[in-house]
Amino acid sequence: MFGSKKSKRVYLDYAAATPLSREAKAAMLPYLTDSFANPNAIHREGQTARNAVEAARDSIAHTFEIRPEFITFTSGGTEANNLAIRGAVMAVRRENQPLGELEVITLKTEHPATQKTVAALKKRGVSVQYAPVDDVGLIKIEAFQKLLSEKTVLVSVAYTNSEIGVIQKLHALRKAIRQAEEKFGTTILLHVDAAQAPLWLKCQFDALKADLVSFDASKCNGPKGVGLLLRSRRVELVPVTYGGGQENGLRPGTENVAGAVGAAVAFQEAQKNWKRRTAAVAAVRDAAIEHIHSELPQVILNGPVGEQRQANNINISIPGLDTEFATVVLDKHGFAVSTKSACAGAGGGESTVVREISNDPARATSTLRISLSPDTKLKDLERLTAVLKQHINKMAKYSR
Amino acid sequence: MFGSKKSKRVYLDYAAATPLSREAKAAMLPYLTDSFANPNAIHREGQTARNAVEAARDSIAHTFEIRPEFITFTSGGTEANNLAIRGAVMAVRRENQPLGELEVITLKTEHPATQKTVAALKKRGVSVQYAPVDDVGLIKIEAFQKLLSEKTVLVSVAYTNSEIGVIQKLHALRKAIRQAEEKFGTTILLHVDAAQAPLWLKCQFDALKADLVSFDASKCNGPKGVGLLLRSRRVELVPVTYGGGQENGLRPGTENVAGAVGAAVAFQEAQKNWKRRTAAVAAVRDAAIEHIHSELPQVILNGPVGEQRQANNINISIPGLDTEFATVVLDKHGFAVSTKSACAGAGGGESTVVREISNDPARATSTLRISLSPDTKLKDLERLTAVLKQHINKMAKYSR
Repeated sequence: MFGSKKSKRVYLDYAAATPLSREAKAAMLPYLTDSFANPNAIHREGQTARNAVEAARDSIAHTFEIRPEFITFTSGGTEANNLAIRGAVMAVRRENQPLGELEVITLKTEHPATQKTVAALKKRGVSVQYAPVDDVGLIKIEAFQKLLSEKTVLVSVAYTNSEIGVIQKLHALRKAIRQAEEKFGTTILLHVDAAQAPLWLKCQFDALKADLVSFDASKCNGPKGVGLLLRSRRVELVPVTYGGGQENGLRPGTENVAGAVGAAVAFQEAQKNWKRRTAAVAAVRDAAIEHIHSELPQVILNGPVGEQRQANNINISIPGLDTEFATVVLDKHGFAVSTKSACAGAGGGESTVVREISNDPARATSTLRISLSPDTKLKDLERLTAVLKQHINKMAKYSR
Repeated sequence: MFGSKKSKRVYLDYAAATPLSREAKAAMLPYLTDSFANPNAIHREGQTARNAVEAARDSIAHTFEIRPEFITFTSGGTEANNLAIRGAVMAVRRENQPLGELEVITLKTEHPATQKTVAALKKRGVSVQYAPVDDVGLIKIEAFQKLLSEKTVLVSVAYTNSEIGVIQKLHALRKAIRQAEEKFGTTILLHVDAAQAPLWLKCQFDALKADLVSFDASKCNGPKGVGLLLRSRRVELVPVTYGGGQENGLRPGTENVAGAVGAAVAFQEAQKNWKRRTAAVAAVRDAAIEHIHSELPQVILNGPVGEQRQANNINISIPGLDTEFATVVLDKHGFAVSTKSACAGAGGGESTVVREISNDPARATSTLRISLSPDTKLKDLERLTAVLKQHINKMAKYSR
């Protein structure tokens, strides 16, 4: 569909979905067909499938520099976040302890998988605090530090925000958490949703300074329906769904063998080349942002500039413009972009992320997210800017 | 791997896993690569993915004769059972109602996905009753009827048992439930786990007389990692994991587009030919059971004979024999069989199913499950019997 001369399309929604890499696909195919057995069976066919799952786990362990037994396969980033947050909070709860004695700290700018999981815990009585963020989405560390209390058992933040690309300073968070742990004599787990990160940032487990890290293969050229939860030695978890003893009792159901195999290849490729990929794409991004600003001075960039921004993320607001309609117009001209995150409802409604950083409804309801692929060219973004400018001028005429 | 002359293998673990059909694979491939977009995006690529998911849902709706809006895609049969059981019980619970006022009835012979989900509810306070089964695993309807009470909100049973193949009489269950509903003026939902059924039995939604039906694509020549939950108009559900609004708010996370497409093809094929497939395989099964009995008179068949047994299931006990070791020996001779269900731990330990129907530890610890494929030949099962007989004789010599 893409790349044919007849209908040249420019796909700029890489934060929502990425194509399966040729290597990941090739690795998966044998496990879709010939080697189809259940990895829990003890016969030869079962062992072939078991070996494939465990080789995938070993590969992922190597990629993220963590021991394989601390890796759990899930059905995606959403389930990984559910398992991390609900699984960890419920595991630290003592028998009959009121849930109100346990506190979770997160952000109002988080992905729905985190927001809604935390909200479900809150409904059951868990105490929830929201750490404030500044006008580019960065956590205000001092305010965050003040929120940490004797009750805090878990902090859940995204490494990079899926809408505005802000990269949180995990070292500073960890430092604040460690100080609180020492002060209160407690354990405070840090969960990092790194679903958007592997193509663009180093995700070595220790470097992230987290106790729990979520990934989603479909965001980095792996298959849809496969996620990961990595955990540190000090994390106890309870499952969020129940059944067979697969994944060390943490995630029941027959393993998605082909999915695990494809994911392992995708994560490896993503992490192997992240630095070069990031440098190249960030240069295109920055030139494009500059171009957009020069052509459309009224545009507001959401999120930070420079190194604190995920390399492939551009998110702008055009106050007064119906950007949902603009997305449709851009689509007709061959550009696939979105207004916000697909899971937050890619269509209408305001961006809760931009509302939170700006407290400006006009800005929050006029967002455009342009997420670049490693192949995006500056001239494509210049063409997009021209189409957008033409559309804005046309709209201005109508509204006069 | 299979079918090569060099290492002719006979795969007899069709209840644990089935190969992806050529048609399902062909349907999936475009959605693994070219049409990779997120179905929640509003651009053209997103709409292509959305259309694929909804066309898959429509196809499944046609296959099972249900409206598409009552179909939820999950990550497998296990998750479907979790959503059915926990989702339905939690949805009928009134604000602040003590969970002890709600009762679930199930069987001790159920798959772990049901057993463990019910156990988790029990731990939270839900009342649980186990309906007794007879010596072939059939629910004792009169005793079941007596268990139904004003508190009963859900009954959860497998259509066919994954270990011993017994097919429950759903019409009789529904009749008993309807009488109780009239007597108590309540609603009692019937959840049927039909994961093993589509290749062998008609699974038209209305014919199953259930309110909730679970399926797993990987059990009928579809991909691993895809399940379904079908529900009737009167069912309310709450999700078991939290996140984006996908699947009508019942199952968050980016849809596994290729998986949904492959599953739709697999379910359609399974149901199109079930009758012919069942007639052919049941004939092989019955001839094989007769042959095993004549060669090994000490063998006990677990589960019913004839039409009340899933066409491809043979489950025998050989009291005194270490059948886990026998499985390994058979594997060396080219036969892939299991002792029990893969999710129940395909290796050692007793079968809780056979223990429940027999109350005989010797029988429960010496099970062999031989689950036939549509291509299984009687002569393969005769060869298996010969290997098994030789092995039994050898073991008898050692124990003398």
